[in-house]
Amino acid sequence: MPKQVVRAFDGLAALPAFPVILLTSRQNVMAAVSFHYYSTRPVCVQVGVRVDNLTHKLIADSGEFGVNLPTPALMNTVRYVGENSGRKVDKWAETGLTPFPATQIDASLVSECPVNLECRVVHRVGYRGSHEWFIGKVEAAHVDPDHGKGDGLLFWMQEFWQVGDPLLKY
Amino acid sequence: MPKQVVRAFDGLAALPAFPVILLTSRQNVMAAVSFHYYSTRPVCVQVGVRVDNLTHKLIADSGEFGVNLPTPALMNTVRYVGENSGRKVDKWAETGLTPFPATQIDASLVSECPVNLECRVVHRVGYRGSHEWFIGKVEAAHVDPDHGKGDGLLFWMQEFWQVGDPLLKY
Repeated sequence: MPKQVVRAFDGLAALPAFPVILLTSRQNVMAAVSFHYYSTRPVCVQVGVRVDNLTHKLIADSGEFGVNLPTPALMNTVRYVGENSGRKVDKWAETGLTPFPATQIDASLVSECPVNLECRVVHRVGYRGSHEWFIGKVEAAHVDPDHGKGDGLLFWMQEFWQVGDPLLKY
Repeated sequence: MPKQVVRAFDGLAALPAFPVILLTSRQNVMAAVSFHYYSTRPVCVQVGVRVDNLTHKLIADSGEFGVNLPTPALMNTVRYVGENSGRKVDKWAETGLTPFPATQIDASLVSECPVNLECRVVHRVGYRGSHEWFIGKVEAAHVDPDHGKGDGLLFWMQEFWQVGDPLLKY
């Protein structure tokens, strides 16, 4: 079928799913698909957070955040922490997630996630849309050596997806 | 196995693969995994480009870029345009990709890609790492209605992956 011209938002919605993370800050945990690397040298990642979220205030105040990579087994937990506010519930208690203390930042990390990155904010991006993006330098990293890259959980526009098969490694 | 503390870069390398795009600017085309949405209102995306790339100069000069979503069938082409510079070869001619003119920006789009976004730069992110990131407002979008979200191509750290199965849609 020939391509159709669609609204900008529908163009965005047609993208494939992106890795989703559990984003920790001080005592809170939320889910975010607004996450990517920013730079390989220095090693920085970036996260986008809606300004009215509790997590936005916690990251803005502390200048720190944790990135925790969930597996597909944690999908329902990811959905719960993404849909509920830390202003109303203690999401650690409600989900049974196990916090462990970071070494370089004042935030909890998620034990059940095979990859955890401790990040310190080095820049707040100056263009405001629906999210404010924070760039964080990775100060420490914890990885389960049994973790495979195919174990990631992808999300986009109300859909969770698995990573599929590797096509080429070089 | 218990988690190990690793170098920051190795923490980054443990992330799952992200959607890869073909990034067009004026006459050139390159591959980029440094791509994400930025905002849903206004609808903006962001791309990161190394400063010494031809694409960096073309986007900085024109203030415009095209996002083109490849399918797994285009993997070898994605690899070729990612590994070769438009300063040395005409990547359209070498790959046989078919350009079609954008409607809102002065750049070519890739016919073979089922999703194309025409973007105008609204912000250059002020923190410089290995890449400079450009935020672009989506001015027009073209989508093949037969395109499925599972048809995306993922890439990370020298590995191409397929999107897997959907887990939940709500």
